[in-house]
Amino acid sequence: MSERLDTAGAVARLLKADDILILCHKNPDGDTLGSAGALYWGLRALDKTAAVFCADVVHERYSYMELELFYEQFTPKYVVAVDIAGAQLFGEKAAKWADKVDLCIDHHGSNTGYADAMLLDDTAAATGEIMYDVLVDMGVDIDVRMANCLYTGVSTDTGCFRFANTTARTHRVAARLIDLGTELQMLNELLFENKSKQRIAIEQLALSTLEYHFDGCCALICLTRDQIAKIGADEADLEGITSLPRSIEGVTVGITMRQQPGGSYKISVRTKVGLDATVIAAALGGGGHKQAAGCEIIGGLDYAKAAILEETGKALASCDIGTPRSGG
Amino acid sequence: MSERLDTAGAVARLLKADDILILCHKNPDGDTLGSAGALYWGLRALDKTAAVFCADVVHERYSYMELELFYEQFTPKYVVAVDIAGAQLFGEKAAKWADKVDLCIDHHGSNTGYADAMLLDDTAAATGEIMYDVLVDMGVDIDVRMANCLYTGVSTDTGCFRFANTTARTHRVAARLIDLGTELQMLNELLFENKSKQRIAIEQLALSTLEYHFDGCCALICLTRDQIAKIGADEADLEGITSLPRSIEGVTVGITMRQQPGGSYKISVRTKVGLDATVIAAALGGGGHKQAAGCEIIGGLDYAKAAILEETGKALASCDIGTPRSGG
Repeated sequence: MSERLDTAGAVARLLKADDILILCHKNPDGDTLGSAGALYWGLRALDKTAAVFCADVVHERYSYMELELFYEQFTPKYVVAVDIAGAQLFGEKAAKWADKVDLCIDHHGSNTGYADAMLLDDTAAATGEIMYDVLVDMGVDIDVRMANCLYTGVSTDTGCFRFANTTARTHRVAARLIDLGTELQMLNELLFENKSKQRIAIEQLALSTLEYHFDGCCALICLTRDQIAKIGADEADLEGITSLPRSIEGVTVGITMRQQPGGSYKISVRTKVGLDATVIAAALGGGGHKQAAGCEIIGGLDYAKAAILEETGKALASCDIGTPRSGG
Repeated sequence: MSERLDTAGAVARLLKADDILILCHKNPDGDTLGSAGALYWGLRALDKTAAVFCADVVHERYSYMELELFYEQFTPKYVVAVDIAGAQLFGEKAAKWADKVDLCIDHHGSNTGYADAMLLDDTAAATGEIMYDVLVDMGVDIDVRMANCLYTGVSTDTGCFRFANTTARTHRVAARLIDLGTELQMLNELLFENKSKQRIAIEQLALSTLEYHFDGCCALICLTRDQIAKIGADEADLEGITSLPRSIEGVTVGITMRQQPGGSYKISVRTKVGLDATVIAAALGGGGHKQAAGCEIIGGLDYAKAAILEETGKALASCDIGTPRSGG
């Protein structure tokens, strides 16, 4: 198990280290990259040698971070994993480092403790919040590039301050980063008004299949394998779409059905506060969280749809939301 | 012209006043209602008589504000207009108050100065930011209901902290309101994940007409009068849709064409930072702002589309964004 450090403890080790390799998780998102970028530029400002490595390609969208990627240009003497909750998230190309991590900086309560030492704060909405404190404690003058990196982490992990993990601390860090020169308009446009053409095509498809049930309290969309293949959408495009049906006024349960290779249907159930999604999913052998659960139904479209609608109807009947404050 | 007051000056007058009528602008949004609601509950906490009036119906969505609406239950001795930039925005049913306003609290730089006195701060992203200072200065203990009202104002006027008007101050006020108990998850769900069924139908329609031009640098959608009428969408639903084409990755110019009663086409031009939308609109007799402009073209669909695309092509050719940081 990892030795638990506080911010000062982690900073003391970073200040002693040099030739530092910073690792991001596979399928890198704004928080792992932004936190790594801020740490990289912070260490560079202290005249240390450092570089960033990720098993997967970093999207062109993040080029403003100007990350220096690791290509064996030095022999790492200290390895830091950023926003990586477990060894399985390093990705194939970074797997050899997974048992050589000196320090992990993370906000996932589920962190497996694979690193020698760990700065873990699961009350932080993003690793970027923790990294802000690290840079301040290291005595780094946070410049615009570092501020942009940290803002990226904090804003992307909270859906631009919209998700339930957002706290007062998140907003305070954002305020401080804006004071420090964060290029707010450029970043918000790039990060939150920039859907891939595949994602737009998936939305177009999803909306063309939209059905309302139970007096508009349930919205359902359905995607077949052929349709998804034709668009060439990836998992990220598809994951985002599951929140669409629930986002409609008056809808308490949003259902997304996706045909699987074997012909079965993978079903995502998203509910508004007041209705437990796991009740619906569990009745069909699935599970998940209160507002986001899922299950898989073996059978054709008509069978799968009838099954999920039956359980949805039961759940709606036994709860009392529908035309409440939620504005139905 | 209005006498200009600072926060302390406005608060001194509010503390002296009683039987206070608080006015919101017509087609009320989250900021005018939230600011009015916070002021209403703040005055009530100081044992004053007050009520809120709006020319238009307040959407059920805002019921958590528990506004006491004015129905002549007292004779107003002091009239406060909140977030109302000009007399024309009172709406018919409130027009009789427009020249009787003692105090206007607003953040619109365009405010016409119709009130006797004015607390105007056009650096505030929302009137809610100003109202937060007013409540603090009045010595009110801000409770959860007031915090919910103020958070509604601040978050809705900034698109949940995404629009270009967002500042460090906006985030600091949000942080303070969260400290004070704002019901963040309920509000963010209600305000930002709650599209009307008409808005969803308009999105479905718009996406079904989506075309890309100039190697994907321009996205164009087109809505006819028949289609809009069939859906029963209102202006708010239609206004929101104009930002859709620009939100696509690689798109520098987003164009929305809407057929008008006379058969002409109203055209909204939205651009990413680096391309001036007014250049395109002005070439066709229109105007606007750098990132959002518009024009009207008399003629059939084919003619109008050819005209706007020709000007868009010229503008794209003379600017150098396209595959830049914006991730195209």
